[in-house]
Amino acid sequence: MSEERAAAVEARALRDYLRRRIPLAAAMDLDVLDAGAGSVLLSAPLAPNVNHRGTAFGGSVSALAILSAWSLLHVRLHDESIESRLVIQRNVMEYLQPIDGTFTARATLATAESWDPFVRLLRRRGKARIAVLASLEYGGAVAGRFEGEFVALT
Amino acid sequence: MSEERAAAVEARALRDYLRRRIPLAAAMDLDVLDAGAGSVLLSAPLAPNVNHRGTAFGGSVSALAILSAWSLLHVRLHDESIESRLVIQRNVMEYLQPIDGTFTARATLATAESWDPFVRLLRRRGKARIAVLASLEYGGAVAGRFEGEFVALT
Repeated sequence: MSEERAAAVEARALRDYLRRRIPLAAAMDLDVLDAGAGSVLLSAPLAPNVNHRGTAFGGSVSALAILSAWSLLHVRLHDESIESRLVIQRNVMEYLQPIDGTFTARATLATAESWDPFVRLLRRRGKARIAVLASLEYGGAVAGRFEGEFVALT
Repeated sequence: MSEERAAAVEARALRDYLRRRIPLAAAMDLDVLDAGAGSVLLSAPLAPNVNHRGTAFGGSVSALAILSAWSLLHVRLHDESIESRLVIQRNVMEYLQPIDGTFTARATLATAESWDPFVRLLRRRGKARIAVLASLEYGGAVAGRFEGEFVALT
């Protein structure tokens, strides 16, 4: 299987998993556009995520960011063959621009260098923390910023 | 109409408004338990808000907190006969305990004294900011804490 084809299969599997296991992800009509180890890109259309003003509901924006951040850690831990439970501990969300259509959340590690110590600690102690960023975009511009702190437990 | 009856009518009207105008609130099966000027209390059952581990999804928890905070400002501004648009600018959410069943979010002003200056500024300038707290509870214990900053525009 080509790398491109493998990535498409991984994105599809993640989409099906999230929508099957997290009813709100299905209600949001979540899609997975990319699910790599470097970043995970999720999208959601406006209609099921709209507020009373016709723009994206802040709760939907936050939820997409959380799902993107969780998914990035899930994909990377799977690549390391580590079975763990991921728990969100804290997040900060900034809403920068109104969102009038389909929006995306792209998650990346807060610092790429944090991954190796995180994995070492998780293997050794069965518990480790890591921070994930997500950038919310709409119409080619940044519409929000998210930072979440997660703990992984094996 | 007694005060108790008026409060029940207001809670019902808020519930219908949120569920009709914000599809995600309906998907979450949101209920309004109390909608007073002092605090707004919302609830959501676990089933539509569950994650892949059988506990409440962080995105649902955040969304309920945001809805409670928005509702408190909406109710209070309605009491002041001020028509305004409320926009969330930033929020911090801490997840303290796993949630295994129906959970609630109770919103209060971050500081009660902030209300009068907020209303004065909003009337004079057409724009003012205010902070709202929400306490997430499950099974009689605090399961999360939310703080959100909103801007009101007339």
